[in-house]
Amino acid sequence: MPKTLFVINPNCNRNVTQVMDAALTPLRHADLPRIQCITLSAGPAAIQSQSDVDMAAVHVRRFAEEHLDEAAGFITACFSDPGLHALREIKGTLSLGISECAMLTSLSIGQRVGVIAMVPESIPRHYRAWGAMGISQRVVGEVSIDRSVAALSEASETIKAMIESGRRLKEECGADVLVMGCAGMAAYRDSVEQAIGLPVVEPTQAAVSMALARLRMGW
Amino acid sequence: MPKTLFVINPNCNRNVTQVMDAALTPLRHADLPRIQCITLSAGPAAIQSQSDVDMAAVHVRRFAEEHLDEAAGFITACFSDPGLHALREIKGTLSLGISECAMLTSLSIGQRVGVIAMVPESIPRHYRAWGAMGISQRVVGEVSIDRSVAALSEASETIKAMIESGRRLKEECGADVLVMGCAGMAAYRDSVEQAIGLPVVEPTQAAVSMALARLRMGW
Amino acid sequence: MPKTLFVINPNCNRNVTQVMDAALTPLRHADLPRIQCITLSAGPAAIQSQSDVDMAAVHVRRFAEEHLDEAAGFITACFSDPGLHALREIKGTLSLGISECAMLTSLSIGQRVGVIAMVPESIPRHYRAWGAMGISQRVVGEVSIDRSVAALSEASETIKAMIESGRRLKEECGADVLVMGCAGMAAYRDSVEQAIGLPVVEPTQAAVSMALARLRMGW
Amino acid sequence: MPKTLFVINPNCNRNVTQVMDAALTPLRHADLPRIQCITLSAGPAAIQSQSDVDMAAVHVRRFAEEHLDEAAGFITACFSDPGLHALREIKGTLSLGISECAMLTSLSIGQRVGVIAMVPESIPRHYRAWGAMGISQRVVGEVSIDRSVAALSEASETIKAMIESGRRLKEECGADVLVMGCAGMAAYRDSVEQAIGLPVVEPTQAAVSMALARLRMGW
Amino acid sequence: MPKTLFVINPNCNRNVTQVMDAALTPLRHADLPRIQCITLSAGPAAIQSQSDVDMAAVHVRRFAEEHLDEAAGFITACFSDPGLHALREIKGTLSLGISECAMLTSLSIGQRVGVIAMVPESIPRHYRAWGAMGISQRVVGEVSIDRSVAALSEASETIKAMIESGRRLKEECGADVLVMGCAGMAAYRDSVEQAIGLPVVEPTQAAVSMALARLRMGW
Amino acid sequence: MPKTLFVINPNCNRNVTQVMDAALTPLRHADLPRIQCITLSAGPAAIQSQSDVDMAAVHVRRFAEEHLDEAAGFITACFSDPGLHALREIKGTLSLGISECAMLTSLSIGQRVGVIAMVPESIPRHYRAWGAMGISQRVVGEVSIDRSVAALSEASETIKAMIESGRRLKEECGADVLVMGCAGMAAYRDSVEQAIGLPVVEPTQAAVSMALARLRMGW
Repeated sequence: MPKTLFVINPNCNRNVTQVMDAALTPLRHADLPRIQCITLSAGPAAIQSQSDVDMAAVHVRRFAEEHLDEAAGFITACFSDPGLHALREIKGTLSLGISECAMLTSLSIGQRVGVIAMVPESIPRHYRAWGAMGISQRVVGEVSIDRSVAALSEASETIKAMIESGRRLKEECGADVLVMGCAGMAAYRDSVEQAIGLPVVEPTQAAVSMALARLRMGW
Repeated sequence: MPKTLFVINPNCNRNVTQVMDAALTPLRHADLPRIQCITLSAGPAAIQSQSDVDMAAVHVRRFAEEHLDEAAGFITACFSDPGLHALREIKGTLSLGISECAMLTSLSIGQRVGVIAMVPESIPRHYRAWGAMGISQRVVGEVSIDRSVAALSEASETIKAMIESGRRLKEECGADVLVMGCAGMAAYRDSVEQAIGLPVVEPTQAAVSMALARLRMGW
Repeated sequence: MPKTLFVINPNCNRNVTQVMDAALTPLRHADLPRIQCITLSAGPAAIQSQSDVDMAAVHVRRFAEEHLDEAAGFITACFSDPGLHALREIKGTLSLGISECAMLTSLSIGQRVGVIAMVPESIPRHYRAWGAMGISQRVVGEVSIDRSVAALSEASETIKAMIESGRRLKEECGADVLVMGCAGMAAYRDSVEQAIGLPVVEPTQAAVSMALARLRMGW
Repeated sequence: MPKTLFVINPNCNRNVTQVMDAALTPLRHADLPRIQCITLSAGPAAIQSQSDVDMAAVHVRRFAEEHLDEAAGFITACFSDPGLHALREIKGTLSLGISECAMLTSLSIGQRVGVIAMVPESIPRHYRAWGAMGISQRVVGEVSIDRSVAALSEASETIKAMIESGRRLKEECGADVLVMGCAGMAAYRDSVEQAIGLPVVEPTQAAVSMALARLRMGW
Repeated sequence: MPKTLFVINPNCNRNVTQVMDAALTPLRHADLPRIQCITLSAGPAAIQSQSDVDMAAVHVRRFAEEHLDEAAGFITACFSDPGLHALREIKGTLSLGISECAMLTSLSIGQRVGVIAMVPESIPRHYRAWGAMGISQRVVGEVSIDRSVAALSEASETIKAMIESGRRLKEECGADVLVMGCAGMAAYRDSVEQAIGLPVVEPTQAAVSMALARLRMGW
Repeated sequence: MPKTLFVINPNCNRNVTQVMDAALTPLRHADLPRIQCITLSAGPAAIQSQSDVDMAAVHVRRFAEEHLDEAAGFITACFSDPGLHALREIKGTLSLGISECAMLTSLSIGQRVGVIAMVPESIPRHYRAWGAMGISQRVVGEVSIDRSVAALSEASETIKAMIESGRRLKEECGADVLVMGCAGMAAYRDSVEQAIGLPVVEPTQAAVSMALARLRMGW
């Protein structure tokens, strides 16, 4: 299995790609498929609107077509899963989305899922996705930290905002598992988990976790 | 209200645009907003895969941006509603999708909606859309006529296939209202309705119908 | 199309009928079907209980039977849609309900619908209606202003109460579109929309908007 | 508890009332509340349309108001539960509907409920009711015997049609419990149950069963 | 009908059994089936975890097998309904669970059900049960009093906590009917109902109420 | 990570354990956690009734408690996931169920899931599980091959029955992904997949696939 699992950051923010890359360290191993995080330099600075998502979808699919020969599989690594279903139309390769995988993983950890969003504008889009997945009944709420992707790197402020959002999801909405609703939050996962006392699912890790063994199985 | 309601056929098949255009005749009137059906010449020959939809979404949004000044509103006229939510992010203009409008209209006509699809590949995508809309409970089935957009123009074969699909939806699935799951079927609406004895919603007509008075209201 | 679209206020409160009538001004035009708002003088002073609704249903249907010859269509203009499904059994005419149309319209504007009710007693009845429509998943909450239909005419108090309810729906429930849950609130629509910063759907306007073009189509 | 539980047949067909009355024999006992089946002579010959239901709702409520002093409770005994929610607005008395009780009872017997309807026209109305109850997910199908209430008394033909419908619900839809979707089918319950090998819930019996002990509890 | 309806308290806390027993007084009568509340001495002190429930399920089923000859029916009397579906596999006897019956009963009283739990740990399990029943749409919230079964006997503290929980369910979640989410709260039902002004369903009473007439019917 | 991932076959049929064990070969590797399939000798010959499931739940949990020190995690390997939620109450270890994992995996492969059951008796239990998971909307049907676990080893007959069931799920129910609803069918996966032309998810493989990387992550 010398091929590569491509984890595609569809925005052009290399910091986000580095955060992801670091988060995947525990999943890298000589005997596991090689994982490569890439930045789509043609992508937008951040993916916040539906228009960003639609544009990213096209870039993600194009990247996949151009890297089919080397690919063990593709992961679209933005919480709106741009291009996921178009990737899946490429037969013979595994394609996963970090949002879908995070939600599915959370369903196997708790009963009542709360999601921490970056910006409030994404929330309706996420609800559409959960409706499409048919899992809306399991989502008890989504609360935004209302910060830009750029501002994500200010650690202490971001952690504080995430803990506050997580606490509302736990106490007001009754969540018993949390999902980080953005690809760039991985570095803060442990802090949030400890502060709130609920398991926290980081979506890129969730997707790569679901991918690794399935690549072995050939699914 | 001298502005134009653009009905955007996102594939490059001018026959489909002509069929739509003809179907809108009853809705054209001096005192109603002007309706213009346009063909996206950059679009694919037909929109059947999710990849087609994603690509079309970008083109549809671009068209809207380029025609904002003249526009009273935009209708994305493919049953996968490419670009609908990106259009809606353009504030101050009305944006509707023919699939969404057809489904909403059907909900005010019958209780149990059956959909006639062009090709089987689209069916899972449509179910995702109905899940996102939160109306899955009202859809009793979708049956495909399994014909290409190109083959749509062979009238008698197409009508025959549509009647057969409609009948299955009525008799096996219990539909009491039908929706045509494609923008290019309008010419066959009356034949199907009469043959099956159920109301049939044609999506482009449904969308333009929903748009016209809302343009007056400024919604 | 010299026939009339009857908008039936099923309570006997002429003020409510006048409010509706004024709200429909933008939808009146020489080339559109004539719209006539009528008050059912045999109706109750207000429709707040289910018993009121059931009684109104009978009156609404009777009115329709007596005016079939002149009618282009009928709209039952109370947010409980009294008689809607009985109207629909009259073949060959268009029948819509303001509640159903308001909800369907809101689904094409936002993702998460909040409803402003007049009185708390109506809320369970509305939830039954949304369940019957199969759209409950899209409704994030309903908050009552707890005022009588009579008290609706005190503008400043009513607007204040509506803004407060709308704000709770936006901030606590996450609504991104609001629906006015009563036929008599139309005059306050703009004030509420501006104060809250969310689109507000007025149900009688929504229903007449959906009706006008469909009458042309003969649906 | 010398008061009476009124079981109101809202159509004027005395045969139906007699069938009900006979079906309740096992539930009559000196120590249980007195059960009286009454025919609403002002009601229609059969309740098949929504218009029939709306009219019946008014009659049922009026009967209850006129008999409040003698009443232990009221059961509206038509499978469309006419007037149920209006009855429930009368505080201090128990009001149940045979459809609601039959469905709730069936949920405690099997997982996948199939319903045998009299006429196909009622099916959409029943689905609206199950949506309003929020139990649609448990209903796997409804099949009509397509016979009038009048024709119900021809036993052998009716039983044959019911068994055929029940068999389709079992074999094609996967039902593991059946509900009779009409108040006048009680006499055939045992035959259908034995022929099909699934439990069959008769709605008037289900409602009276739910009522009897609740009357003792004062709920 | 000399046989016995066994109401099985699957924990070994005899106080809970006594509370139940007292709550059933209005349902005992010479002409009704005999009701016997029993304590499973092999059961745990309280049933709070899923592991407790699984263990209790085995004991409940074993008890039923050992008492089949004397039994008119079995009620598993813990709000997690341990063993309910295993009991139902014993053909020819009636088996009900107090949770299922309480929820079904509440659906015939109000539209929006709120549940008062003992401990927060049970809440996800209860949501799983409502999902399995297909009635999640009707449950608006569950709030825990966060007290142990042992602490239930301190009346004034418990009532105070239940009223507080009930008030949150009414005011914040919009409940119009409440369910006690534990078998041992019966003694406080009237106090809670009066304080909050909503009907309160006690689950053991609900289950025995549903059972009594069904035993006569042989269902 | 010298610890073991225990895959617990909760019935005492060693053939089933061997089939599982063989199916996991591709997932075994020096650098991945050790996978050990064990047979619960105290378990029943097959798990077909709810009573079997309840009993198995207790045995599964007991096994886990006795092997905590050596365990990296536990998988309950019967399609009814006996003991899953009790396992999850053991903090600090990963617990998964093959049914839950198979369903979640299938949701990331297709839109409309069809399930092939062993025996018809299990179907209502499976629907309860999908309701509890909140994913019922994605399941289009379940069809049983109506064979005992013992008969599973007759390969050609079993494959024939599975293909027939799969075909009904594809053609009549519209499934675009299939799930094997039993732990002992793994050997036939490829044959069924090829014959039907839809992806087929084998539940034990799905669960171990989900587990392996999560063990590395410490989730």
